Amino acid sequence: MCGLSVSVLLHREKNMISVGIVGGTGYTGVELLRLLANHPQVDVKVITSRSNDGVRVDEMFPNLRGHYDLAFSVPDGKSLESCDLVFFATPNGTAMTLVPDLLEAGVKIIDLAADFRLKDEAQWEKWYGMPHACADLLEEAVYGLPELNREAIREARLVANPGCYPTAVTLGLLPLIESGQVDLSNIIADCKSGVSGAGRGANVATLMGECGESFKAYAVPGHRHLPEIRQNLETIAGEAVGLTFVPHLLPTIRGIHATIYVKTSQHAEWQSWYESRYANEFFVDVLPAGSHPETRTVKGINHNRIAIHQPQGGDTLVVLSVIDNLVKGAAGQAVQNMNLMFDLHESAGLNTVALLP
Amino acid sequence: MCGLSVSVLLHREKNMISVGIVGGTGYTGVELLRLLANHPQVDVKVITSRSNDGVRVDEMFPNLRGHYDLAFSVPDGKSLESCDLVFFATPNGTAMTLVPDLLEAGVKIIDLAADFRLKDEAQWEKWYGMPHACADLLEEAVYGLPELNREAIREARLVANPGCYPTAVTLGLLPLIESGQVDLSNIIADCKSGVSGAGRGANVATLMGECGESFKAYAVPGHRHLPEIRQNLETIAGEAVGLTFVPHLLPTIRGIHATIYVKTSQHAEWQSWYESRYANEFFVDVLPAGSHPETRTVKGINHNRIAIHQPQGGDTLVVLSVIDNLVKGAAGQAVQNMNLMFDLHESAGLNTVALLP
Amino acid sequence: MCGLSVSVLLHREKNMISVGIVGGTGYTGVELLRLLANHPQVDVKVITSRSNDGVRVDEMFPNLRGHYDLAFSVPDGKSLESCDLVFFATPNGTAMTLVPDLLEAGVKIIDLAADFRLKDEAQWEKWYGMPHACADLLEEAVYGLPELNREAIREARLVANPGCYPTAVTLGLLPLIESGQVDLSNIIADCKSGVSGAGRGANVATLMGECGESFKAYAVPGHRHLPEIRQNLETIAGEAVGLTFVPHLLPTIRGIHATIYVKTSQHAEWQSWYESRYANEFFVDVLPAGSHPETRTVKGINHNRIAIHQPQGGDTLVVLSVIDNLVKGAAGQAVQNMNLMFDLHESAGLNTVALLP
Amino acid sequence: MCGLSVSVLLHREKNMISVGIVGGTGYTGVELLRLLANHPQVDVKVITSRSNDGVRVDEMFPNLRGHYDLAFSVPDGKSLESCDLVFFATPNGTAMTLVPDLLEAGVKIIDLAADFRLKDEAQWEKWYGMPHACADLLEEAVYGLPELNREAIREARLVANPGCYPTAVTLGLLPLIESGQVDLSNIIADCKSGVSGAGRGANVATLMGECGESFKAYAVPGHRHLPEIRQNLETIAGEAVGLTFVPHLLPTIRGIHATIYVKTSQHAEWQSWYESRYANEFFVDVLPAGSHPETRTVKGINHNRIAIHQPQGGDTLVVLSVIDNLVKGAAGQAVQNMNLMFDLHESAGLNTVALLP
Repeated sequence: MCGLSVSVLLHREKNMISVGIVGGTGYTGVELLRLLANHPQVDVKVITSRSNDGVRVDEMFPNLRGHYDLAFSVPDGKSLESCDLVFFATPNGTAMTLVPDLLEAGVKIIDLAADFRLKDEAQWEKWYGMPHACADLLEEAVYGLPELNREAIREARLVANPGCYPTAVTLGLLPLIESGQVDLSNIIADCKSGVSGAGRGANVATLMGECGESFKAYAVPGHRHLPEIRQNLETIAGEAVGLTFVPHLLPTIRGIHATIYVKTSQHAEWQSWYESRYANEFFVDVLPAGSHPETRTVKGINHNRIAIHQPQGGDTLVVLSVIDNLVKGAAGQAVQNMNLMFDLHESAGLNTVALLP
Repeated sequence: MCGLSVSVLLHREKNMISVGIVGGTGYTGVELLRLLANHPQVDVKVITSRSNDGVRVDEMFPNLRGHYDLAFSVPDGKSLESCDLVFFATPNGTAMTLVPDLLEAGVKIIDLAADFRLKDEAQWEKWYGMPHACADLLEEAVYGLPELNREAIREARLVANPGCYPTAVTLGLLPLIESGQVDLSNIIADCKSGVSGAGRGANVATLMGECGESFKAYAVPGHRHLPEIRQNLETIAGEAVGLTFVPHLLPTIRGIHATIYVKTSQHAEWQSWYESRYANEFFVDVLPAGSHPETRTVKGINHNRIAIHQPQGGDTLVVLSVIDNLVKGAAGQAVQNMNLMFDLHESAGLNTVALLP
Repeated sequence: MCGLSVSVLLHREKNMISVGIVGGTGYTGVELLRLLANHPQVDVKVITSRSNDGVRVDEMFPNLRGHYDLAFSVPDGKSLESCDLVFFATPNGTAMTLVPDLLEAGVKIIDLAADFRLKDEAQWEKWYGMPHACADLLEEAVYGLPELNREAIREARLVANPGCYPTAVTLGLLPLIESGQVDLSNIIADCKSGVSGAGRGANVATLMGECGESFKAYAVPGHRHLPEIRQNLETIAGEAVGLTFVPHLLPTIRGIHATIYVKTSQHAEWQSWYESRYANEFFVDVLPAGSHPETRTVKGINHNRIAIHQPQGGDTLVVLSVIDNLVKGAAGQAVQNMNLMFDLHESAGLNTVALLP
Repeated sequence: MCGLSVSVLLHREKNMISVGIVGGTGYTGVELLRLLANHPQVDVKVITSRSNDGVRVDEMFPNLRGHYDLAFSVPDGKSLESCDLVFFATPNGTAMTLVPDLLEAGVKIIDLAADFRLKDEAQWEKWYGMPHACADLLEEAVYGLPELNREAIREARLVANPGCYPTAVTLGLLPLIESGQVDLSNIIADCKSGVSGAGRGANVATLMGECGESFKAYAVPGHRHLPEIRQNLETIAGEAVGLTFVPHLLPTIRGIHATIYVKTSQHAEWQSWYESRYANEFFVDVLPAGSHPETRTVKGINHNRIAIHQPQGGDTLVVLSVIDNLVKGAAGQAVQNMNLMFDLHESAGLNTVALLP
């Protein structure tokens, strides 16, 4: 197969953004590599993994054969500091120990974990169960949802890439909350995620024998994405929001579907309201009235597809919002943020078609 | 394989209930045959299918090999009238054309379709889009949810077997509504069903290529199970109920999961309330506090497993209710109803263990 | 739910076989519990797990709720020695350390692992990579394939329950080898297994994210079931057999499909030959000529369904053989063996209908 | 979503190949559209469907939203004749009725169905059960497997795009047959395909309720791809080849895995032989020695990944060959052929990364 030489050469062109990935052996890591392989202006220089030092990335992930001539290495300050941008695709609590030095060295950061997502240190420590190593950066960190914070992201040194559920729910609710015409005290987000959202760690609960041909809710008493979603909604609303959030585990590999219930006394033209709000958003697609988005229509792509219903003309609005949890819910949104931070076209490397069927 | 002689002989014993099944080529039909094969007091004498006249049931469904020496036949009044009980596993609108004559002939009826589920003829005609052929029987027909109508079922000639979603939702809500302490104006039932619920007809939408590895809501503007659920809830409450019902298609074969949201100002002991209400119900299993029922724990069995949560002690109750749509949601509940109508132990033929994994 | 009292009482009847299970937290363990719950003459008295001491079996496996009032306990000689029969559902290498003492105490043993499957100690140590702790028992141990060794099993103290692939392949080939009319030097067994065959251990390779929506061969250079299958075939043939065995991982939970290729110069009546050979076997079902068995037709049951083809009348026979790897390939066959060892009807507790769909 | 304008504009550039697709509502059609959407030099001008005249392609396939401003139309000679190239993604027997006129009009043709795959008219009519409408073109038609017929494809007016199984099996065997060192009389190809290979027609057999969580062989007595594979192998070998081909249905959406067994008396360096043979093939990837290719590593891409084993150094070679049936097995190979016919880089539009997980 002669693919390697061609595409590796492409990555050696000048004026490329040199990128490092810390913690590249999980699903977020391989997805970043997939997306960056076809990005015209990125050169992945270093990808780290303590336990897989020396293993080629295409040995662990054969879908990458022909696209990378790169091996995992032990994280090392010097090589990371030589990058223009470092993505953290690590467990929660890792990025915060390395980020201050990298920022100091002038490296931009996108953290795909949760270390910088909450503004309130006490809340963060409560939900994540550990002290924060650099809480002084929480204020500076920009929450990386471009549809909400585009201009701030362009200027950011440190971007907190949103969680998968928060992305699907926030984009689904944004126009409603901005409308000022819904009941903010009683919002319900019933969400369903494919198993890749649980990561690539060895774990009985996500064995195919455990979660295949089955379905369940989990974390009903409280999930870490609850305070993150609430923070987003309250930022938009400028006031307190009452939210019930219930996640479920889907027997699919990819895909998030959020079904959102909001009370309103208005019979506004919600369809056109949504269409107007997102008219200039490349990655948010408001479906025609009466639609039911399928998660497969965003498989592998960075789009969010949304439909809005008002069943039987009643006082409950139902918003259906789907994303690919690994793309718009993680690696794709990170690339979108990178594009903004480096003044590239926002969709660079991301304008592909979802795999259907 | 010498299995046939043994089990066929078992079915030839005396004092057996002789049973007919109209429309046996769908998933409800084969599931009835599976359950009745191991029922100690049933002899399936006739099973009809116009398009498969003469085909052996175990040729169409090889899982039945060794259990039945029976072929499909064209529906025929005489052979059906010789049965003690006829199950209708037909599309909506079929049973109502045959039921009056069978009742006249002294045959008991369990209709697994929707012909007799709604009490209000106008509502029925609106949601099912056709005139009703014997609306005078709507009043007599007993809605076959034993946990609600046990005594009436015992005496019934005609039982309307409940829909799958209505079973999961009604059992999930029954104790809350009986409590009188919840807001009846604002109930949300977010439901998910495996694809067998859509039947065995040739249909692009339920091809594995279409619904595998995907997830979507459907019928958000209005689903036929909405008036059925509302009728149940209003019967229990004795007053009007405000219900939003959104069904979704799961990429599993079996299983329904209802996630139900109800507002309350009470911090009652909901766990013990549920346990008390269902203490004497064989097929309703209230899980320990903090549980998340999985659909696989009821795969192939007639049980309903329920958990009740009050997240963060707030004013929203979350009920999780799972059934196997083909068993408690269809054929199993029909057998449970038959057991009641013929004064057998309610769990006869139904006390098996779910297939896990 | 009032199920518990009833079924637990059933297990307390007199003249029951008292059973112990060592290592009950894997898929073989829960499947044994499922099958034994409905067995009319078995009382499971003890089930062990070092790491889950004190955990109720129905807490770990909620499908068992209402069927067992039992918790896992640390393995303990005294309680095991009080059983009539002990099943080992442990990793390879565990049973051999405990079996000698139990046999000494008069307990019968069925080992569902591989410790006693191979007669040749050197072969065993080569393939399993450890010394054998009681090689003197290899000769006495009876290979528990009833269709091959029924009479020996009836008299056995120690039964080596066959592997899943060896069961499917041996039953598929038995009539051909007995015929003496096929080329023994060149047999190919292309086998496919659902993921439950890999067990319930935390393992990246069997995460749904890894094996869902994919398919691969594995262990092509050599799999432990190769010497076991070869031993079976050579025992039947009385001479050396040339076998190529390639296992594959199916993205299903249950099911094994063996596709077997054998050369012959004969155009015998293979269909009737198979039907005659298995006419008296309860659990082997020879399908009509031209059939293609589906793994779902044996889901949850102890049957093996077989079809034999001679495509285009050529010199290659193709045998299709399906089992449920957890039932006829493990726990069901163990119960069948138990029934023989305790002089019960061979199908006691096993005459159920496969779950389809 | 502002995607449409951008990508539609891209398609309006000059010097584009103008393309028509006949029969675009199946899986092959939507896959062609997906691949062509990102092809830098193609403009899809017309796509036909009698039954969906006027329906927008992105209404039927929402994954295409933002990529096409095109609706299905009734097939019409004039609009097709204005294209540079027409793809037929129709059922067998359709292309042969339209191809002669289109060729006459100077349009190049790639038929993704089977009308022009077999050189022998009698064989074609036997296996496809109908008379051939333009058998005089069978000789001219070039079998579109670039790794076999690259130069002829460059010059072709009419390309017969290979079947999915024939692609996987022929590429897997090509180096072995060219070696002259294997037994040509006894080749076994045990193949497994995802359900998208059966198409998007409404069909009980490919409902998720029928083929999910199950596995079976089919068409063991004889499948239409048998003569096609045999024709390929005999063309390479220059002599008769004995082939047994057994297809199976996998419960995945995409993916073909061929496991091929060949006898040899040689212990050649097969690994390096394969690597050399395919060193200059962009789309054939010989994996390192000892590998087991997974179908997911080619999901959505045009690559074929191959491994070669000689288990225990015996006389049976085992070749493992995987493709995506809708890409290298259909639409991707068609695009590869188009690239050759129009003198583009062979990988234009096809150098993407497989979706994993």
